[in-house]
Amino acid sequence: MTALKAGATIGILGGGQLGRMLGSAAAALGFDISIYCPEEDCPAARVAAQHTIGAYTDTDALIAWAKTCDAITYEFENVPVEAAQALISAGALVRPGAKPLEVSQDRIVEKTFLRDCGIQTADFAQIDTAADVAGPIEQFGGEGILKTRRDGYDGKGQARLELGDDYEAAHKALKHAPCILEAMVPFEFEVSVIVARDRAGESICFDIPRNEHVNGILKRSVVPSDLSADVAERAGDAAKALADALDYVGVLALEFFVLSDGTLLANEFAPRVHNSGHWTPEACATGQFEQHMRAVAGWPLGPVTRYHDVEMLNLLGEEALVPPEVLAADGILTLYGKRDAKPGRKMGHLVRRRS
Amino acid sequence: MTALKAGATIGILGGGQLGRMLGSAAAALGFDISIYCPEEDCPAARVAAQHTIGAYTDTDALIAWAKTCDAITYEFENVPVEAAQALISAGALVRPGAKPLEVSQDRIVEKTFLRDCGIQTADFAQIDTAADVAGPIEQFGGEGILKTRRDGYDGKGQARLELGDDYEAAHKALKHAPCILEAMVPFEFEVSVIVARDRAGESICFDIPRNEHVNGILKRSVVPSDLSADVAERAGDAAKALADALDYVGVLALEFFVLSDGTLLANEFAPRVHNSGHWTPEACATGQFEQHMRAVAGWPLGPVTRYHDVEMLNLLGEEALVPPEVLAADGILTLYGKRDAKPGRKMGHLVRRRS
Repeated sequence: MTALKAGATIGILGGGQLGRMLGSAAAALGFDISIYCPEEDCPAARVAAQHTIGAYTDTDALIAWAKTCDAITYEFENVPVEAAQALISAGALVRPGAKPLEVSQDRIVEKTFLRDCGIQTADFAQIDTAADVAGPIEQFGGEGILKTRRDGYDGKGQARLELGDDYEAAHKALKHAPCILEAMVPFEFEVSVIVARDRAGESICFDIPRNEHVNGILKRSVVPSDLSADVAERAGDAAKALADALDYVGVLALEFFVLSDGTLLANEFAPRVHNSGHWTPEACATGQFEQHMRAVAGWPLGPVTRYHDVEMLNLLGEEALVPPEVLAADGILTLYGKRDAKPGRKMGHLVRRRS
Repeated sequence: MTALKAGATIGILGGGQLGRMLGSAAAALGFDISIYCPEEDCPAARVAAQHTIGAYTDTDALIAWAKTCDAITYEFENVPVEAAQALISAGALVRPGAKPLEVSQDRIVEKTFLRDCGIQTADFAQIDTAADVAGPIEQFGGEGILKTRRDGYDGKGQARLELGDDYEAAHKALKHAPCILEAMVPFEFEVSVIVARDRAGESICFDIPRNEHVNGILKRSVVPSDLSADVAERAGDAAKALADALDYVGVLALEFFVLSDGTLLANEFAPRVHNSGHWTPEACATGQFEQHMRAVAGWPLGPVTRYHDVEMLNLLGEEALVPPEVLAADGILTLYGKRDAKPGRKMGHLVRRRS
């Protein structure tokens, strides 16, 4: 495929805030946006030219929708792999493809893939039954985190275990789902690399944010991260190696734990634009949403020059019930148009320039 | 009215590129957008939650639409004054109101209003018939520009006249419309002030761009303008005085001719966001579209800190047929989603950082 023309339609699987921000960025480039998701009144559809309501498992509906799109991308990593594969088999151009979904949806597959790319991770073990915990937890120094292999996000589907805990009860609380036990990592702080890769295989990384989580949910990202140049370069190279190995086209985010000696341990990656990159549209020549859409369209990537130091604060649940005019006085405000401010729900974010 | 809440619906009269960019900016603040315009497939509706197709003269349709909106604004200055008045009479919150339309739609009323605000303009005379030209053109030094009082834009509806020309033929070419004769101004260059005023009466100006026109159409805006601080301050004060006199809420643009001695002669104003401010989203903490929507929502204005020097180039007609991936390699590209690239039509713009 050559590059998409202005006026082409880009389809997005998923209707959340990432789809909303991707859609607005693509509209600024002259594209029409078509959202496919199961929800009727979703944040993304309200800024899109078209909206198809359907299940991700309804292959016929997906393929009919795909015929109205010139290219398709996704805004969340739990799109069924089969949906992406069906679209590709039907001739649709899906960027970044089905493979990144397949790899990122299962923590064992993901960590194995990262290691195969030469990217270091914490130690981990496959847990099918509670009896599988005892060996690895001793090996990991007497503690670990039990996580479901699939469908966990924002700290959900996790339990911290110590030697001698009731492993069966912990596994039962996770509905006896297939799990992974990960060794605890004595990290100093967390960072993420947001990298874009175009169809020609060229990659470019945004400056690396340092990320602060509260209750497993991202609360704040700060740039610069104060990583040494050497460590930052290693992090960027790892993200590029991952993107290359996936033959990735678009933006992905690779999260790292940073140890006191500068060791980087990859935690997980997201095959999409990322919350820790929400400061990029305000602080950089090209934001992550535009960057992703440029790659999807087959356009060259934009420059990622950062104009100033910056922090991004997530507005979670009731934090977004502060009157918006008060929030807006305190930084550059983005709200996602979600109707209900459930506890912990990502409702918007604030970007602040740091002097 | 207190400030609009997140999730409120803002209605926009007009479906062009300004509505599109206003709509995307408002969506980022958490608002839903509802477009009212006569065209079925317009640039703005494709990024809006709602679209009502109707004539600006259909008062019943307008009022029915207004009932679905929490506030209403407009994206072009030729919305009939009667439409705005009917909406206001029906209880709708219309910002910036009907008065700015009334004043800006007629060049005689506009220049008189500017002068009443203490803002200097070129000399002008009212032309109802060709016979009215002879006196003023002599008084203006033997030349002048005949313009229709209403409905001119981008250099349309104008004719340059010299002493002894066939005034009747010129007036006939303008369909004998009520006209104004304006004295020629020996200006060095043109600038515009883009000012925002909030509901509390606070005003804030963006840095002033220098504007270059080709065939009466804006081609390039450059910031900084190289105006002296003193002249820039006078220009800003004039724009604020105009906004105050109109009890304006939102963004307006006031255009000036700059003479070699620093004299500023106001040309016209637009009661809306302005083409010469299209660099602001890329180069400033708050862009003009967000700024307008903040004012319309009753929110505080945002900071207009400019991060770097910048130029904005309009893409007119066939200039936008260059493949967008080529354009995008040359600056930050915005395309308006217009289906046909008619000659001279504003199709998009490029913003370039200047080192």
